[in-house]
Amino acid sequence: MDKNMLKDTAVSYVKEAADYIREQMKYTYGIDTKEDKDDLVTDVDRNVEKFFKDKISKNFSEHRLMGEEGSFENIKDLDGVVWILDPIDGTINFVHMGTNFAISVGIFEDGVPLIGVIYDVMNRELFVSVKGEGAYLNDQRLPLLKERPLDEALVSFNTGWVLKDKDLQSVVEQVRGTRSYGVAAIEIAYVAAGRLDAYISKKLAPWDIAGGCALLNEVGGVATNYRGEKLTFLDVDTLFAANPSIYKQIEKELKSR
Amino acid sequence: MDKNMLKDTAVSYVKEAADYIREQMKYTYGIDTKEDKDDLVTDVDRNVEKFFKDKISKNFSEHRLMGEEGSFENIKDLDGVVWILDPIDGTINFVHMGTNFAISVGIFEDGVPLIGVIYDVMNRELFVSVKGEGAYLNDQRLPLLKERPLDEALVSFNTGWVLKDKDLQSVVEQVRGTRSYGVAAIEIAYVAAGRLDAYISKKLAPWDIAGGCALLNEVGGVATNYRGEKLTFLDVDTLFAANPSIYKQIEKELKSR
Repeated sequence: MDKNMLKDTAVSYVKEAADYIREQMKYTYGIDTKEDKDDLVTDVDRNVEKFFKDKISKNFSEHRLMGEEGSFENIKDLDGVVWILDPIDGTINFVHMGTNFAISVGIFEDGVPLIGVIYDVMNRELFVSVKGEGAYLNDQRLPLLKERPLDEALVSFNTGWVLKDKDLQSVVEQVRGTRSYGVAAIEIAYVAAGRLDAYISKKLAPWDIAGGCALLNEVGGVATNYRGEKLTFLDVDTLFAANPSIYKQIEKELKSR
Repeated sequence: MDKNMLKDTAVSYVKEAADYIREQMKYTYGIDTKEDKDDLVTDVDRNVEKFFKDKISKNFSEHRLMGEEGSFENIKDLDGVVWILDPIDGTINFVHMGTNFAISVGIFEDGVPLIGVIYDVMNRELFVSVKGEGAYLNDQRLPLLKERPLDEALVSFNTGWVLKDKDLQSVVEQVRGTRSYGVAAIEIAYVAAGRLDAYISKKLAPWDIAGGCALLNEVGGVATNYRGEKLTFLDVDTLFAANPSIYKQIEKELKSR
């Protein structure tokens, strides 16, 4: 299998799905009821996953699909090639904002990230990586992440969690600034692009993080769960994704994790 | 003075400035040192403000300019027509991310917001309002803000402040979610567009909020300082900008302000 051809194919699927989503939104965002938008997100989630399911079973019959909507099959291991898909990451943003959501795809081979594709649909930013060949944002190569002092770091995490975690509060006091976007795939992609230096989350599924972790690998980023353990990409877990130097500096603060 | 012609002129200045900023960034974001980016933000801030200063003094000699860089004159009142400009709102995002910053313009007449223009430069979202004629996002009219229960609200504020304010912590526990973008002009524009339902900030200058408050007026939004007092647009102050129904619901929680 040519991994660059596979990457190009994955990107073409993502772009086709994004066109579909934008088209669907045009109609629903004219209507101003929450119910219609909730229906839309459900429909779009299902239809985008079905679109990937059909394409993969037709063109890559030996590959498997793990998707948020669970429409394909239950995945209990990552043997062979597995596409890990979130049709819409950031569903609250999708419903509430009509923007700032992403399609996220991670293609894994025997448990190892091979390809990552994250598309910020409305802002049209495409993050793509191929194992051993680097990561790109809209065709511009992303540089390896450089060392950075903690007081120059921008970090992203959920305010609700910070309020319950003294260690994270100590991190907040030391960094340059905090951000929170409510869309894990984009926040991990931002870490890979050096826009954020760390992203910490309390509860994420494999499809929220698979594409982002593939990107991170290609720029020297680090991703573990919050306790510093290896991610399995099979279960819901915490996430601590970061620039490697910021990872070490934040880790020192996490005394009670 | 035809306020629609003035609006079109302000938009054309903002778009010309945005083209200039994008052009400058192309070069600097190829270089990867923080110093170069800090120099860039200083240069761009100054040059964009000078561009507006020259345009205004040539074409609107009776208007005054209040800008972050203070290059024009000291403004002690809002008599007559005053352009309140932030050449780059979100300078940390500009330097650190190369995106998620805005040009913000509010044109006031005898202290009343007449025109608001906020441009999210890299994501190319243009928010525009004219007094009495509504607010627009990329030429689509923004609807009046509707009533919304607090548990469906998305609110934005700085995590550092929340950690020091028990009242805001109680708000965090009741809302649907929190966000933080580090760019006041865009966060206020998001409230006007119904993407966020409230934005609270600890310390903002008139140029951070003038364009956004003009937008808010046109969709029935509310903006006061954190203590609920009228904004003067002459001094640094706190800000509490919100959907009117969310404003009232959050206000009830702010017992110690």
